[in-house]
Amino acid sequence: MDMKRIGVLEGDYIGPEIMKEALRVLRAAGEHTQLAFDIVPLEAGGQAYDKYGCHLPASTLRLAETCDALLKGPFGGPPEALASPKWSGVEQEAILPLRQHFGLYTNLRETKVFDSLLDLSPVKGHVVKGVDLLIVRELISGIYFGEKQARVVEGERVYSDVEAYAESEIRRIAIRAFEYAKSRRNKVTLVAKSNVLKSSVLWREVVAETAASYSEVDLDYMHVDNAAMQLIINPRQFDVILTSNLFGDILSDEASVLSGSIGLFPSASLGDGPFGLYEPIHGSAPGIAGRQIANPISAILCAALMLRYTFGEEALAVRIEHAVRRTLELGYRTRDLFREGADDPAKLLGTAQMGEAIAGAL
Amino acid sequence: MDMKRIGVLEGDYIGPEIMKEALRVLRAAGEHTQLAFDIVPLEAGGQAYDKYGCHLPASTLRLAETCDALLKGPFGGPPEALASPKWSGVEQEAILPLRQHFGLYTNLRETKVFDSLLDLSPVKGHVVKGVDLLIVRELISGIYFGEKQARVVEGERVYSDVEAYAESEIRRIAIRAFEYAKSRRNKVTLVAKSNVLKSSVLWREVVAETAASYSEVDLDYMHVDNAAMQLIINPRQFDVILTSNLFGDILSDEASVLSGSIGLFPSASLGDGPFGLYEPIHGSAPGIAGRQIANPISAILCAALMLRYTFGEEALAVRIEHAVRRTLELGYRTRDLFREGADDPAKLLGTAQMGEAIAGAL
Ligand SMILES: CC(C)[C@H](C(=O)O)[C@@H](O)C(=O)O
Ligand SMILES: CC(C)[C@H](C(=O)O)[C@@H](O)C(=O)O
Repeated sequence: MDMKRIGVLEGDYIGPEIMKEALRVLRAAGEHTQLAFDIVPLEAGGQAYDKYGCHLPASTLRLAETCDALLKGPFGGPPEALASPKWSGVEQEAILPLRQHFGLYTNLRETKVFDSLLDLSPVKGHVVKGVDLLIVRELISGIYFGEKQARVVEGERVYSDVEAYAESEIRRIAIRAFEYAKSRRNKVTLVAKSNVLKSSVLWREVVAETAASYSEVDLDYMHVDNAAMQLIINPRQFDVILTSNLFGDILSDEASVLSGSIGLFPSASLGDGPFGLYEPIHGSAPGIAGRQIANPISAILCAALMLRYTFGEEALAVRIEHAVRRTLELGYRTRDLFREGADDPAKLLGTAQMGEAIAGAL
Repeated sequence: MDMKRIGVLEGDYIGPEIMKEALRVLRAAGEHTQLAFDIVPLEAGGQAYDKYGCHLPASTLRLAETCDALLKGPFGGPPEALASPKWSGVEQEAILPLRQHFGLYTNLRETKVFDSLLDLSPVKGHVVKGVDLLIVRELISGIYFGEKQARVVEGERVYSDVEAYAESEIRRIAIRAFEYAKSRRNKVTLVAKSNVLKSSVLWREVVAETAASYSEVDLDYMHVDNAAMQLIINPRQFDVILTSNLFGDILSDEASVLSGSIGLFPSASLGDGPFGLYEPIHGSAPGIAGRQIANPISAILCAALMLRYTFGEEALAVRIEHAVRRTLELGYRTRDLFREGADDPAKLLGTAQMGEAIAGAL
């Protein structure tokens, strides 16, 4: 038996409910291999704040360092309480430091449109059918981590942020994007704003240099404003989208819309080694927490990505992804996926039921 | 007769074709009032580069200063030539300096979904029907105009841009947004990224302060990644969106998609006085230039905005907008609006024909 240590940050609100299903499916998948999982609970987010007065205790970080991978639920509070001390610091004190501490510069966000959910998309079926794109987002540099200032200049407040990129930061993620493209459809679209931003000019320079080593991959360039349009008008034109931290944040949320529910998508954050952080791209959905109606698929697909990227268990990852696809094809739905009148009410499942259905379909 | 001086920057590629129709409709509209228009041709963009070796000759700027308003066509070259000296500098040397020189800090971009074009949208009809939103974008500050550096640090290139906002820059445009909301549906949604950017924190502070003087207007806040989703999932929730230069660039292009063609939308750029710069939001479309197939509606609606914001001729502006709406309702289409099989081929119009139809419908 090969024992793997998985650190689990449950997250807030719906976090614990959906993470439980991810672990259920992971364990079931493990039975098909020589892998066993040692689950290490890690305290962070709102939960930790209540107990320790901070969002990411040093003890959590130390324990996380002993793990092979982290599975993380969504952190954050309800809209009306975001300014409270419990919630206001969660991004700056937990989410961003976690990414940076482990050097996780590559964030992968895939958008796939499932045929069985085609009607769910706000975008027309003939536009979104067959969409399968991967956003490769830089995650530990750019304006997220540049110098920040809040000054008073001549009697008025002036607040600023710096978007800076070094060529090595761009090159290492560009290499990743080209490698992924090779195992997909051989196309990389760099998205930046080079007609306005100097940092985008560097992205174009360095990515073009990197492309020289990947003659089999087509490199395309698009300004971010145009990309925001093209994602909705003609999303099938994209294979791999390579972009900065800020643009990746915006475009990946936008792209997730194509599928019809943000409850479907996982993300992987990777550094140079096999260690990875896996988390749903959606938030903690306080409005539906504790009612067993949240969709656990994003969390379950996080487990698949972990098997693929950290443990090199491609076949097992695909097995989970197929189980998800099959469960949807059989008509099973959580509430976010359910269309009144069109879907079968007998197949409307709760969070745990969906987890069981997918585990059963493995 | 009240003589108004209109500076016309024709623009590149389809620019001259569509601007001609804007002027046709403007003249026809003028016949219904005491206004007469003195058209002042201004050289800028690729055209000017060929003749003078620069994109915005000083003589153009001097002449523009004598005008009451500017009507501008799209500048720019074909994708494959964007790196050439003729095209690479057009944004930094013409578009941005024009905005800054005249202090045009408010950029207005409306997205309306015409009932008669509902089928054209890539987004489903029940989602986009009735959409009517106004993006109020800050236009002469932020990362577009902050300090830019291209340095070599420890042997590698590091390029950077600064996003900085001063409270006075935010307050003046916030006031505009609240004023527009008062004459619309009394709702302002501020879009920023305050969980990551200091500058966004200042936007929240100053906009909340401004809101205190507008008790009749609801103020809502959304992170930009969420806004990029909400624009497609539920666009009718928006009335006025207030945002920074960069986010406004991205979101306004994205929003234009809802209508089904980017050939429909004008924009107004305003400062403190009545002077304004009016331009389509789309590009110069080199691929279809010179063939009389471009859609002149964006340019024609620029003329309407000019009458509204610079000349205070609200009734005349509405008259043009109604003429456009009626022409579309009668089934007339340019090629970008035409759906094979659904629309009447006898009503497929060229650029000038569409201009004539709208002038005739006034
Ligand atoms: C919570 C926030 C800091 C984060 C980001 O902007 O990166 C989130 O939106 C995401 O995309 O993971
Ligand atoms: C051409 C470019 C500089 C410009 C911008 O980014 O502002 C354009 O995209 C626009 O939105 O008017």
